[in-house]
Amino acid sequence: MDNFTFHNPVRLIFGQGQIAQIAKEIPAGARVLFAFGGGSIKTNGVHAQVVAALQAAGLFWLEFSGIEPNPRYETLMKAVHLARAEKLDFVLAVGGGSVADGCKFIAAAIPFDGEPWDILAKRARVNTATPLGIVLTLPATGSEMNCFAVVSRDETHEKLSFGSPAVWPKFSVLDPESTYTLPPRQIGNGIVDAFVHVVEQYLTYPAQAPLTDRMAEAILSTLVEIAPAAMSNPPDYQARANLMWCAAMALNGLVGAGVPQDWATHYIGHELTAIAGIDHARTLAAVWPGVMAVKFEAKKAKLAQYAERVWNVREGSVDDKARAAIAHTRAFFESVGVPSGLAPYDLPADIADQVAARLDARNQAPLGEHGDIDSAMVKRVLAAA
Amino acid sequence: MDNFTFHNPVRLIFGQGQIAQIAKEIPAGARVLFAFGGGSIKTNGVHAQVVAALQAAGLFWLEFSGIEPNPRYETLMKAVHLARAEKLDFVLAVGGGSVADGCKFIAAAIPFDGEPWDILAKRARVNTATPLGIVLTLPATGSEMNCFAVVSRDETHEKLSFGSPAVWPKFSVLDPESTYTLPPRQIGNGIVDAFVHVVEQYLTYPAQAPLTDRMAEAILSTLVEIAPAAMSNPPDYQARANLMWCAAMALNGLVGAGVPQDWATHYIGHELTAIAGIDHARTLAAVWPGVMAVKFEAKKAKLAQYAERVWNVREGSVDDKARAAIAHTRAFFESVGVPSGLAPYDLPADIADQVAARLDARNQAPLGEHGDIDSAMVKRVLAAA
Repeated sequence: MDNFTFHNPVRLIFGQGQIAQIAKEIPAGARVLFAFGGGSIKTNGVHAQVVAALQAAGLFWLEFSGIEPNPRYETLMKAVHLARAEKLDFVLAVGGGSVADGCKFIAAAIPFDGEPWDILAKRARVNTATPLGIVLTLPATGSEMNCFAVVSRDETHEKLSFGSPAVWPKFSVLDPESTYTLPPRQIGNGIVDAFVHVVEQYLTYPAQAPLTDRMAEAILSTLVEIAPAAMSNPPDYQARANLMWCAAMALNGLVGAGVPQDWATHYIGHELTAIAGIDHARTLAAVWPGVMAVKFEAKKAKLAQYAERVWNVREGSVDDKARAAIAHTRAFFESVGVPSGLAPYDLPADIADQVAARLDARNQAPLGEHGDIDSAMVKRVLAAA
Repeated sequence: MDNFTFHNPVRLIFGQGQIAQIAKEIPAGARVLFAFGGGSIKTNGVHAQVVAALQAAGLFWLEFSGIEPNPRYETLMKAVHLARAEKLDFVLAVGGGSVADGCKFIAAAIPFDGEPWDILAKRARVNTATPLGIVLTLPATGSEMNCFAVVSRDETHEKLSFGSPAVWPKFSVLDPESTYTLPPRQIGNGIVDAFVHVVEQYLTYPAQAPLTDRMAEAILSTLVEIAPAAMSNPPDYQARANLMWCAAMALNGLVGAGVPQDWATHYIGHELTAIAGIDHARTLAAVWPGVMAVKFEAKKAKLAQYAERVWNVREGSVDDKARAAIAHTRAFFESVGVPSGLAPYDLPADIADQVAARLDARNQAPLGEHGDIDSAMVKRVLAAA
């Protein structure tokens, strides 16, 4: 078990009817930037609930809509200019992980002294940010319970991340009913996203951290258990509630406590989204089998443990169990409608070269828990995927 | 899954050599009350590490020693008077759960306007407190990661609790090596204390919260796995580390998220400590089998789930599995040297009447997740124990 620091100050307000709580969580007198995405919150009742809460609190607000999936720097800067011009001093993100991530960037950029793109491209330090709260409508990224964000830039086809304690959400409201109108594709993506967040922190090598391992297995087992009901229509409250709680727990620091972490699948996946526009979760499901194939020897001990505890595989050697774990996982991704490989996507022939070159250009490789996945190995990963 | 709010802002700094970190966690210029217990920290090197860190930070401090197990109001008020007289503005608790709890009370009492006893006896509201940090040396109570405390008063043989967001520790440092000099009795007590904290939140009735259930099972299974090594001498770093992490996770709000909770064992146990001076953890192990016996029908569904997942019981009916769960748990308590019943203790003949009368006097009964354990049932619990 490695040394670690765990700190997560987000106030998570969870359950039916809880959107009304934002009235007492946003400071009195705040001038609110109410930011959202494509307008689905207007048809599913969430917009009306937020407006009712803001009115109940007597708050001033301006709306900013149009934050897209893989939020674009160009869009977010419009919100930053609005907030600066109107002296807005609280950012309320209402939507999924893209809106949450976009609003973290907006919150950091509003008071930023300099070129905000540097926050992403040059990892400029974010010392302060406009306070931020989230109303989550799509369980997936875990952005609601961490201080990280990923932002894309059209101009350069880049997808970059930043993190700062300044952008911890002051609160996040998770009402499972707000997920009822999501299409199955988004629920499937969310399940895969949460699942891969956990395996990035879990499927490395044994590190004598049995509690952290079991917490990871708790989330994975629960996702497997609730996935069929979470995909169902009419929506099942309990399944959606557990999915929401799993997604938040998957990336809030707990399952990374005291253990090595991988994240190679994510770094490679981000480039696939940036180059080819594939949904984030779909890149993860597509790349992950390739990482497992290439790093099989280094990971097989943990893969076998995962096979036993999550997939109830009792027979065979360590290698057999590890292979069974990969097969079960791929089947699970497929069961929620997400392809577990790159074959279904129409990618350029040189995609592996492009991804490797982009990772190299930003010194992001070598990747993985051993820091040994260099650009040559990235090409093998993509070939295997 | 019930609605819930999860919020835990404690910065947990975990691992070997981490006590030195307090130098940057305590605000510059603070005047520190360095409070501890019976002096064991002077022989195991923790005192010297804390002094070195305080010196490195150039901080002023005064020491206050002698906070006893089941910290006494009378002792704590001496520290309050010292802090007020010397204008100390940061409380550093160095020790186990009793020191941590005692220091939460000290931190709340220093700025309290009125009679501090009212915080405990009349649940007077604590709106502000002197900031507090903890260096933990005994994994057990979980006080290092919550905002609750229990304090005793000699004069009236009372043991009372309070909680307030004002007494969240700003940080808690958990160095597993600081537990190396603990006697086996204290390790055994710590294992039982953490274990029972989890079962109080887990062994109720099914509530469609599979993730929270599995998080509870993760802690219980880990405690079972690491207990033999944690009890060993010479000390095993990994076992002590996992025990420390389990104890913190057992009472930080996570395993209570979205589920009903019991706590009858704790309320009854507190009275046994107050009346007869039995170690806190020992009262829990002694009372718990009685609660299970009396509430068997209401709890057997969760007891059977617990039998399957933590004790690997695969055969028999729900009743059989539930009974096996109780037997395994009692054997586990005994395996770490803690009696699983009241028989070994020399108690007054009317102990059940005394406990029931004291709970009634403070309107604490009825207890339990169904609120149906009245004073008559408390007597049956103690008879069964």
